[in-house]
Amino acid sequence: MENFSFYSPTFFEFGKEAENKTGELVKRFGGGKVLIHYGGGSVVRSGLLDRVKDSLKKEGISFVELGGVKPNPRSGLVYEGIDLCKKENVDFVLAVGGGSTIDSSKAIAAGVVYDGDFWDFYCGKYITEALPVGTILTIAAAGSEGSPDSVITRESDMMKRGASGDAIRPKFSVLNPALTQTLPAFQSAAGITDIMAHLYERYLTNSTEVEVTDRLIEALLLTMKHEGPRVIENPDNYEARANIMWAGMMAHNNSCGVGRSQDWTSHDIEHELSALYDVAHGAGLAVTMPAVFKYVMKHNIMRFAQVAVRVWGCCMDFEHPEVTALEGINAFRSVLISIGMPRNFGELGAKEEDIPVLAQNLCYGNGRDGKIGGFVTLTKGDCEEIYKMMV
Amino acid sequence: MENFSFYSPTFFEFGKEAENKTGELVKRFGGGKVLIHYGGGSVVRSGLLDRVKDSLKKEGISFVELGGVKPNPRSGLVYEGIDLCKKENVDFVLAVGGGSTIDSSKAIAAGVVYDGDFWDFYCGKYITEALPVGTILTIAAAGSEGSPDSVITRESDMMKRGASGDAIRPKFSVLNPALTQTLPAFQSAAGITDIMAHLYERYLTNSTEVEVTDRLIEALLLTMKHEGPRVIENPDNYEARANIMWAGMMAHNNSCGVGRSQDWTSHDIEHELSALYDVAHGAGLAVTMPAVFKYVMKHNIMRFAQVAVRVWGCCMDFEHPEVTALEGINAFRSVLISIGMPRNFGELGAKEEDIPVLAQNLCYGNGRDGKIGGFVTLTKGDCEEIYKMMV
Repeated sequence: MENFSFYSPTFFEFGKEAENKTGELVKRFGGGKVLIHYGGGSVVRSGLLDRVKDSLKKEGISFVELGGVKPNPRSGLVYEGIDLCKKENVDFVLAVGGGSTIDSSKAIAAGVVYDGDFWDFYCGKYITEALPVGTILTIAAAGSEGSPDSVITRESDMMKRGASGDAIRPKFSVLNPALTQTLPAFQSAAGITDIMAHLYERYLTNSTEVEVTDRLIEALLLTMKHEGPRVIENPDNYEARANIMWAGMMAHNNSCGVGRSQDWTSHDIEHELSALYDVAHGAGLAVTMPAVFKYVMKHNIMRFAQVAVRVWGCCMDFEHPEVTALEGINAFRSVLISIGMPRNFGELGAKEEDIPVLAQNLCYGNGRDGKIGGFVTLTKGDCEEIYKMMV
Repeated sequence: MENFSFYSPTFFEFGKEAENKTGELVKRFGGGKVLIHYGGGSVVRSGLLDRVKDSLKKEGISFVELGGVKPNPRSGLVYEGIDLCKKENVDFVLAVGGGSTIDSSKAIAAGVVYDGDFWDFYCGKYITEALPVGTILTIAAAGSEGSPDSVITRESDMMKRGASGDAIRPKFSVLNPALTQTLPAFQSAAGITDIMAHLYERYLTNSTEVEVTDRLIEALLLTMKHEGPRVIENPDNYEARANIMWAGMMAHNNSCGVGRSQDWTSHDIEHELSALYDVAHGAGLAVTMPAVFKYVMKHNIMRFAQVAVRVWGCCMDFEHPEVTALEGINAFRSVLISIGMPRNFGELGAKEEDIPVLAQNLCYGNGRDGKIGGFVTLTKGDCEEIYKMMV
């Protein structure tokens, strides 16, 4: 096990009607003038936004609003949010939505107290200072509600990049599983896929003697394998939603990633797809992961055999462990397809002829030196092969 | 799943030589004048105390010292610590030791800023204010390094009781597994048992639809089952120590206990043993748990069958699930015995003739109304039966 630091100071309020505590929570964490940041009309139509505002008013907290966050959130709205916060002397950013809204809120929170261009943080500068952020989560997926990370797409060149810093970890996150019951099935499934991807990216390690974190990841994968299909079958299943929502947070606050190298190859390969085609991140991952896993499998057959046996219920073939390893990848892919995720480029809306551009952006965009990958180092040629496997 | 709040803001610095960062960490969390609180001579002899002092000096932080914490820490030393802190204007309490030292430090930290008798907190008053506490952990066991809890024994009547409050959660905890390599085997084994008890107390729930927390508990039990015997076989196994140390923290910061009722029967029953005989808490638990589990098993056979299958590798007897349930309890007991834990009252140093007093103190001591138990409500008569099963 490698040396590590672990810090996850977010306060989580979990359960039915938890959003009614928003006002108390903002007050507890020092907010006096709030920016409520959100996406489309669903949080308005569902009445969630009104409940949140009522909760703030009850505590005498004033607020301004900025809606319009899109999936794969854009830099343009971040600049707008920063200007609004400065103009209105906002001291707390409240995200009401999913990962995109939270990521956009984190970018705004960091940008408000920074003299330069907020995009600097998305080019590698660590975020050490930001306005406090709180979240009211409406989809279990990105894990941004408990993470120090944010991903934004720059509109000028559709470059999709991440930033990080303990300063943008939410002070609190409100997790009410009931809020996710009205999601379209496709969005629920994409969220489930994203959560499982966060677990697999941590599972693909080159560190040894990491039994505790292996077991924790497997525990959450087992949970997702059990609860994911239940939610797709019955969208109103509060209990399955609750298990998924908490697993989604645990999958990405790094509880399950300490003391080990991690991968993030699938995320990097997928980011190019969602930047170019604006597809749902989870849907992109569903097509990406099986291809990546099959391509890198030979690097450590036993790791893939282990997850196949412990999570996917495969019988270990001790003579041919590669058979078991592959069986586990296929079992995972079957679950993703069964919950409605796309299986290839065509179903995703991606084009084979774009592969050279995708691989070029991936390996040389934003200062990269031609290589990606934590588990296995991959060249542009490798990445082209992986994209071809997805066709 | 029940509604819940979860908050675990402790910063963990984990790994080899992590104690050399103590000075930086105290500074980061606002300490200027430190009480170094510790137990016996081992932290002095090993040179750990000197390394900690050097680290503080390097950051220009002054300190006073108070040693002498005993297992099952006593109120007398807490009063002494409170007086010392007041006299010396201490603003940060640093525990160098195991659960007893940390619990004593938490009591001191709460007592210093409280006008009344600190024992009020151990009679049910919630701790809302305390000096900041940091820890340098020397044994994986109690989980106090990441918990809001403290257990102290009052010397006047040997009453052993707990207190709680987010204010006494450590600001940081330094976890260096190498520091545990010099522990006597018995202490390591008692620590392993305590960690597994923290997991079982959370496993015995009456809540339903708690797949995610069930799976997480099972993950840590599987880790302990694998790594525990490795440590006893080879005390210098850093990697096994590391897995156990992190599992020990995760087992008790409530990551694995949210959204569900918990039990704590075994702890309550054991506390009377360690208060009366001053036995190691983990050793007392090793004798207590199998008896409690066998006594309460019929309340929910499937829960015990589930852990038997998922953790202890038992084959499910679908016709007689109670056979599987019992097989799992026996498998757990075998592991405890194999690592050197006592199996009965005799080996523990407890006396059958004390059972009426034990049960009386347990069920009527410190304001209790004759009943204990979260999983099953137990009367004094039930508790006497359980103590008898331990003879």
